[in-house]
Amino acid sequence: MHRPVPDHRGPELPELLSEIVPGLKKIFQTTRGEIVLFPVSGTGGLESSIVNTLSAGDLVLAFNIGHFSHAYAETARSFGMQVDEVELPWGQGVPADLVHDRLIRDTARNYKAILVVHNETSTGVTSDVRAVREAINAAHHPALLLVDTVSSLASIEFLFDEWSVDVAVTGTQKGLMLPPGMAVVCAGPRAIAASGQVNTPRFFFDWRPVLDEMKRGYFPFTPATLMLYGLREAVRMLLEEGLPAVFGRHRKLAEGVRRAVRAWNLPILCRNAAEYSNSLTAVELPEGIDADKVLQLAQEELNLSLGGGLGQLKGRVIRIGHLGALNELEVLAMIAGTEMALQMVGIRIVPGMGVQACEEWFMQEHLAGRRVGSSR
Amino acid sequence: MHRPVPDHRGPELPELLSEIVPGLKKIFQTTRGEIVLFPVSGTGGLESSIVNTLSAGDLVLAFNIGHFSHAYAETARSFGMQVDEVELPWGQGVPADLVHDRLIRDTARNYKAILVVHNETSTGVTSDVRAVREAINAAHHPALLLVDTVSSLASIEFLFDEWSVDVAVTGTQKGLMLPPGMAVVCAGPRAIAASGQVNTPRFFFDWRPVLDEMKRGYFPFTPATLMLYGLREAVRMLLEEGLPAVFGRHRKLAEGVRRAVRAWNLPILCRNAAEYSNSLTAVELPEGIDADKVLQLAQEELNLSLGGGLGQLKGRVIRIGHLGALNELEVLAMIAGTEMALQMVGIRIVPGMGVQACEEWFMQEHLAGRRVGSSR
Amino acid sequence: MHRPVPDHRGPELPELLSEIVPGLKKIFQTTRGEIVLFPVSGTGGLESSIVNTLSAGDLVLAFNIGHFSHAYAETARSFGMQVDEVELPWGQGVPADLVHDRLIRDTARNYKAILVVHNETSTGVTSDVRAVREAINAAHHPALLLVDTVSSLASIEFLFDEWSVDVAVTGTQKGLMLPPGMAVVCAGPRAIAASGQVNTPRFFFDWRPVLDEMKRGYFPFTPATLMLYGLREAVRMLLEEGLPAVFGRHRKLAEGVRRAVRAWNLPILCRNAAEYSNSLTAVELPEGIDADKVLQLAQEELNLSLGGGLGQLKGRVIRIGHLGALNELEVLAMIAGTEMALQMVGIRIVPGMGVQACEEWFMQEHLAGRRVGSSR
Amino acid sequence: MHRPVPDHRGPELPELLSEIVPGLKKIFQTTRGEIVLFPVSGTGGLESSIVNTLSAGDLVLAFNIGHFSHAYAETARSFGMQVDEVELPWGQGVPADLVHDRLIRDTARNYKAILVVHNETSTGVTSDVRAVREAINAAHHPALLLVDTVSSLASIEFLFDEWSVDVAVTGTQKGLMLPPGMAVVCAGPRAIAASGQVNTPRFFFDWRPVLDEMKRGYFPFTPATLMLYGLREAVRMLLEEGLPAVFGRHRKLAEGVRRAVRAWNLPILCRNAAEYSNSLTAVELPEGIDADKVLQLAQEELNLSLGGGLGQLKGRVIRIGHLGALNELEVLAMIAGTEMALQMVGIRIVPGMGVQACEEWFMQEHLAGRRVGSSR
Repeated sequence: MHRPVPDHRGPELPELLSEIVPGLKKIFQTTRGEIVLFPVSGTGGLESSIVNTLSAGDLVLAFNIGHFSHAYAETARSFGMQVDEVELPWGQGVPADLVHDRLIRDTARNYKAILVVHNETSTGVTSDVRAVREAINAAHHPALLLVDTVSSLASIEFLFDEWSVDVAVTGTQKGLMLPPGMAVVCAGPRAIAASGQVNTPRFFFDWRPVLDEMKRGYFPFTPATLMLYGLREAVRMLLEEGLPAVFGRHRKLAEGVRRAVRAWNLPILCRNAAEYSNSLTAVELPEGIDADKVLQLAQEELNLSLGGGLGQLKGRVIRIGHLGALNELEVLAMIAGTEMALQMVGIRIVPGMGVQACEEWFMQEHLAGRRVGSSR
Repeated sequence: MHRPVPDHRGPELPELLSEIVPGLKKIFQTTRGEIVLFPVSGTGGLESSIVNTLSAGDLVLAFNIGHFSHAYAETARSFGMQVDEVELPWGQGVPADLVHDRLIRDTARNYKAILVVHNETSTGVTSDVRAVREAINAAHHPALLLVDTVSSLASIEFLFDEWSVDVAVTGTQKGLMLPPGMAVVCAGPRAIAASGQVNTPRFFFDWRPVLDEMKRGYFPFTPATLMLYGLREAVRMLLEEGLPAVFGRHRKLAEGVRRAVRAWNLPILCRNAAEYSNSLTAVELPEGIDADKVLQLAQEELNLSLGGGLGQLKGRVIRIGHLGALNELEVLAMIAGTEMALQMVGIRIVPGMGVQACEEWFMQEHLAGRRVGSSR
Repeated sequence: MHRPVPDHRGPELPELLSEIVPGLKKIFQTTRGEIVLFPVSGTGGLESSIVNTLSAGDLVLAFNIGHFSHAYAETARSFGMQVDEVELPWGQGVPADLVHDRLIRDTARNYKAILVVHNETSTGVTSDVRAVREAINAAHHPALLLVDTVSSLASIEFLFDEWSVDVAVTGTQKGLMLPPGMAVVCAGPRAIAASGQVNTPRFFFDWRPVLDEMKRGYFPFTPATLMLYGLREAVRMLLEEGLPAVFGRHRKLAEGVRRAVRAWNLPILCRNAAEYSNSLTAVELPEGIDADKVLQLAQEELNLSLGGGLGQLKGRVIRIGHLGALNELEVLAMIAGTEMALQMVGIRIVPGMGVQACEEWFMQEHLAGRRVGSSR
Repeated sequence: MHRPVPDHRGPELPELLSEIVPGLKKIFQTTRGEIVLFPVSGTGGLESSIVNTLSAGDLVLAFNIGHFSHAYAETARSFGMQVDEVELPWGQGVPADLVHDRLIRDTARNYKAILVVHNETSTGVTSDVRAVREAINAAHHPALLLVDTVSSLASIEFLFDEWSVDVAVTGTQKGLMLPPGMAVVCAGPRAIAASGQVNTPRFFFDWRPVLDEMKRGYFPFTPATLMLYGLREAVRMLLEEGLPAVFGRHRKLAEGVRRAVRAWNLPILCRNAAEYSNSLTAVELPEGIDADKVLQLAQEELNLSLGGGLGQLKGRVIRIGHLGALNELEVLAMIAGTEMALQMVGIRIVPGMGVQACEEWFMQEHLAGRRVGSSR
């Protein structure tokens, strides 16, 4: 991305898009979805999924299972949709049976869409989108399935076609390993059809002119041109490593982090092992400990960036991210830094305990021939 | 900007904003405006100026004097405003007397806002925003004045406070000399007050949470973090050169371009010398010449990017941009390349004619001690 | 080159060299020469050509036709060689007939080497190395032919094998379009054999351990690792453009510069058109004009770097470089800036005269279908 | 360093040198030494220390205590000096008493210089240069003291003036945290005087023209221009952190590495704790283990670069570097990776053992308020 800015009406653009668009489709694992790119961070892309598929007054089913799940619901609410937002304890995923339950009772077919955050990054929980789809199917319900894949795409398996997702949205700064600044939308045929029918006002986020211009390799606005070069490179790297290898790497690194957390004797916020996130682990701290103090010490004393609790979890958890271009030694350094910062606030941890547990797991995987290697 | 991406919830952010925000205010020449930054290209910033200050049904006065003027009107129309869009020949600015006329006749004070593109980059025309303000004042009309300064800020004099502008919007890729990817909004008190009253649905583009978070040095969304480093550097460079010097440089370079165009015996699209744009010159080509062919030859044969006609001007004009980090020799190279491309399509130009006229002007300015120097 | 520094004993090195070495051989147009790379600027590479092929007391034939020719002779003298340095007026090339003359009279075969600077960049003169070789052959003389190709390789045709050159040396900062910091030596079999026989003391510049290690992909010292990435890219770019195209481009750009100089009515220092340098033109200024003042004004007022007179030419000439990654518009900008600076010191030039002549030539070439294009 | 290459005869050069030269003097802790910069890697700088201070036939005292110590002796030998190279087991420093002994017996004052490698990076041993100086003084011997500080400067305390060093040489790629490509020489008055008297042939490495040109801010050859920008930044960073802090940081990180090695139950090659190197630790591996296999696995499986045994230590040791821009977590990652690679070749190590010992030490230092922080 370190290069002169190209003319966004020049010949470089179609060339870039001709490689980026098919590459992104492979990453979304879709042939029926269309790619829409916006020069905006992920939140903007999510807004586009609402304003293009729903009209004011439409009923939407959402689940408040974390900060980003709630924000997605809020987005819809802001545009006048009626949001049936089921309140649940933070730390679990979207319950597919509850989805089924609601839809079955909706005999009038009022729900127009279901909002799911695939990987809720405020709690470290991955919802089972496949199960949600099956619940919808079982209920024979026509609601659209809109999925926030900001912190899952290119880290955790996501199958746009197989799960009949209608819209999936991601940003560039997570699994795509780039700076923030571009939203990547994958829109299926029913969602695109909706964009021509709904009456929600929109201009910048209107998919239609973008889809139109992108067919010719251009955009109806000034795109984040340098980002496109980075995006092409990211797509190349991911497809070269191979999606199964990318997912496997995240799975193994995440398990290493979880083993360290267990060695510290601290609870993982996500209670259900089947819903553990492979891109982020949220760790609950003991009563009386200010989690934000851990963050501050990690930053100031060790130059380590950890995530803090958002919303109702503020001050109560630390969040350890483990997605993107990451390898085992980087995870071990992060674990070491985290356990040092935890000790600094007075949590009793035998120095090295977490690293030891993590390293042992990585060695075990190596001996079993499951090499994680480096993503770089 | 070539550096690792910082944590957007980390300590770097407040530090960056504490220099960027006051710097941008100096560049907008305001003390009463507030800065709102969005990780989106300029179009998105313009949309925010509409959705935060107007409600559906509000009457808006706009002037179709070029592609971007029309697009601004369209943005308002998309959100349900009633747009009184005065159709005018492309090649002139917003006529202040017409503004006065309309407002005076609006005894019911129905117009809620007037949309002006300060520098219409599709035609190379700079509207007299000061005169527009005086017309509004003379009519004692309360309408808000919303100004698109995408291709004028930091190139052409713009006085937010003195002209009592209510909202001004720019992008990073023009006078701020950065890649595209960030919108910079300057909102005055009446506009900010409006944002709490209007009922246009909005989420991402809502100024209120952004203003709120920016006070603490953060954003309610993932910002274009690397861009912030670039923006700080751009602000430093502009303030070091000094705004009068920056405007003077653009004025002299622009005059050099215009002298070249006259030497070619081709008409400048902007007919009124008082409205010549100092950031871009649009040149009309003779009947029968395809302007896009000139662009293509300039690109392919000479590695020179020229702008083409947009909308109704497609194929009829070429647009020569002359803003940002630019010096005399770069302008001369651009003029040389343009006249070569013009010759290639068969326009009869004595080789070197334009460069000669332009260079003569630059020499004259040098001898008069008005050194243009380099912006770098 | 913007990347982390690799381990110079790691696996990246052999991979880099396996592409760089064959590529450089193609650029030297050789199959019998060996490539030796030193992490040093060109001067160091030239020193290696002396200390590896000559012993103290050896007689060497050299020609003082410019600053760099004299420096090459001085290098040999510093190591105890007896240098027969023929003094000639600066502005001409090495006279092949004089070479022939000297060699024929050297019946004892005392001359061990002949030093030639292919392109004397202090005067803008290219010597006819082919003719020198023919003179040596005609005299049936065994002297080695050592050639400084610092400012000619990859800009002006150079045929290592066809001209039976024994050593050729270049740097990275000219035709190879990189920052300075690496010397590239091409050594033929007789030169390599000499390196095992001569008794000049050397350690760092000893070719033998370098040749040895490079066979395995490594170096006996810490190489300029990042430079190697740049060098690989430069080699790729040159071979993709093709050497004939590269030479043709330099020829045309150089002719444009010379036409401008003639339009200014100033003498080119190089008197013999057959010896015009295609990488640099030295221009004599009228008596009473301080050439260094022109340089200073070009730099300060126009941000243009021109070369000044070296040695005996100090203050008397300006040198216009035109090699490397350069295209027509850049040359036109340089010509414009040069003629502006010349006017500033009081030389009477009609503004635009030089640019006009240069542009006319480029247009003529375009119309003749000899597209120069861009090297980028 | 990511910037356009400046003209090396332009105004940027004196400006750069005016900050770099005084800054380097502070780093060498000298007021009487002069700085000489060469666009060459460290080996070239060391050669310059020989050819400028010694004549062929001069007697030199050297100690073969490692690969680089031997290479320094070889450099002198290559230029015809008579080298009295004391053979010692690798793993110890230069014995000051032995120096004293030799000098006292040299009643004819034949030794012209003593060569010392401050930090022998092939064995991880730091020689006590202060003690060597005291031994020379005690013997009232006039020999020059030449010191290779390639892997010690800006990492391990070095006092040019206090220890009356005559020449010290370093490269850019170690404590100065830059890519390789520049040699930094600090020459004291006696060494500079010698450069005018000795008869060793030299041209590129001759200090005299360089000292001469550098006074005016320039060089007699093309310098590694981009490197100069990097060097200015490195000097700024080091002086901002403060030399005592820089040395303290290296000391603490090194101790962490040593504690890990002890936890692995492997011997540190350096037997004498007073001579432990704070920039590199060499670890002996058990009989029958191929150390190069450890390196290969660390590289291939874990993306970790470790150093291998050089010369007589080939295959027998691994070398863990810990100098430059490095912090605690990076050291912990390196230790984790090393112990994983050691396990992979079958060495019995409880996973996490080394990391635990290292982290414990870092925590201890933190609790004692000796914050290491980050060098970045």
